[in-house]
Amino acid sequence: MERFDRDGYLFFPSLFTEQEIRVLNDEVPALYAQRRPENVREKTGDVVRTNFAAHMYSYPFAKLARHPRMVEPVKQLFGEDVYMHQFKINGKAAFDGDLWQWHQDYGTWRADDLMPEARAMNVAIFLDPVNEFNGPLMFIPGSHKLGVLDAEHDTGTTSYPLWVINQETIRQLVERGGIVAPKGPPGSMILFHGCFVHASTSNLSPWNRVSVYLSLCAVSNHIRRFKRPGYIAHRDFTPIQCLPDDCLLRHYDVPLPWKNGTPNDELKAA
Amino acid sequence: MERFDRDGYLFFPSLFTEQEIRVLNDEVPALYAQRRPENVREKTGDVVRTNFAAHMYSYPFAKLARHPRMVEPVKQLFGEDVYMHQFKINGKAAFDGDLWQWHQDYGTWRADDLMPEARAMNVAIFLDPVNEFNGPLMFIPGSHKLGVLDAEHDTGTTSYPLWVINQETIRQLVERGGIVAPKGPPGSMILFHGCFVHASTSNLSPWNRVSVYLSLCAVSNHIRRFKRPGYIAHRDFTPIQCLPDDCLLRHYDVPLPWKNGTPNDELKAA
Repeated sequence: MERFDRDGYLFFPSLFTEQEIRVLNDEVPALYAQRRPENVREKTGDVVRTNFAAHMYSYPFAKLARHPRMVEPVKQLFGEDVYMHQFKINGKAAFDGDLWQWHQDYGTWRADDLMPEARAMNVAIFLDPVNEFNGPLMFIPGSHKLGVLDAEHDTGTTSYPLWVINQETIRQLVERGGIVAPKGPPGSMILFHGCFVHASTSNLSPWNRVSVYLSLCAVSNHIRRFKRPGYIAHRDFTPIQCLPDDCLLRHYDVPLPWKNGTPNDELKAA
Repeated sequence: MERFDRDGYLFFPSLFTEQEIRVLNDEVPALYAQRRPENVREKTGDVVRTNFAAHMYSYPFAKLARHPRMVEPVKQLFGEDVYMHQFKINGKAAFDGDLWQWHQDYGTWRADDLMPEARAMNVAIFLDPVNEFNGPLMFIPGSHKLGVLDAEHDTGTTSYPLWVINQETIRQLVERGGIVAPKGPPGSMILFHGCFVHASTSNLSPWNRVSVYLSLCAVSNHIRRFKRPGYIAHRDFTPIQCLPDDCLLRHYDVPLPWKNGTPNDELKAA
């Protein structure tokens, strides 16, 4: 907990086993093939950049969303129950995976969703090996200490509009904290602060770099406005109930409420 | 020479001293500020992507073009005299430096310039530190063995049109040879084969990554067609006469024929 407070992130190499990750990976092609609003594609064409809310309609990912190895450390850091604020599977596909500019996630959660404080945790789980060539996440250690930084809305660089931090601020932050890019095998997990400044370059390598990105929000800190569609910023603040530790490899009943399509009122502002 | 033949490249960390590199670096801002056709800018705006032919109008770079530490190894590998086919200073600027797709240089030299064989050597000299975050050159070891690979003309991805190798070929080459990205301090030099497949990602870091890229062609292998402007593909096949080893730090007379502007007949096809 001291290290998280100081650096803004924690890295757990190989937290999930190869077997467990295979269960998730086997599901991704079918998810990405679906024509539903939850799939946002790259500007170059048909390749999926990000898939939203798979835990609402995919059995393996619904179990991952309740995995104690992922949820318990977050509860420990916040000292209270958490709910799922956002659930994404980012493609960062071989050759086509585009960059993500320098940004903080909490800036968006505050501005769009009226989330009161930065008490939501980002979780990255590697489904592919992450190496120096396939566009690893880059972080500026210590950058979470400054709260929400000024940002500009960049709608042109990639297919996904983003609040991007200005270059002079990045220069100063990096001078103080440097840059780190955790790399490791599939099944590795990163926890990082909602104000942690991060980016990733495009993936020119022939290796996919699919990762699950979750944002788990402290229940008392739930969002106050439903400006974004429900599949992007969830509106159900029920505390996550963890499944047993072997949940990815054994059968457990989980609800899949969007299995037959996204409810209409989750597709638009409320 | 055996290693060059096997791998397709040689890396010489810190071949030039800090003092020597400072002489070159001090000149770059003034070069990039010039409004002349030799400066190609990034699609994002005013930042220079590549500067051509500085050795024809910049005193320090005219000396670098004749440096024995750079020229002699190339002559040794080809077993004959060489001339300067192309001279570039690539910006890869902090934040703005865009990617270069996977390509071979000799493909262009053959198609556009009718260069008979791949007997021209690429030379990269680092003017800034190169690290994993500022878009290092990526190479596929052994990829020079296959001659000219099929390529498609990509005019859309960046501001600079390029003959780009298809993804399936890259996948196969990487499966066999992997990817390497030499990193090191300013003054490091890479020699690489004209058929060597290479690329680099965008530079999101706050660190510039300026490099000099030279192509030295064996004199007997000179180009047969002047389709491209002379400042891009030179038409003077005079063998390079080396200066002494201390040339970057002492005064030596060198010609600067384009000091007052590029001759008209070097700006267009002949």
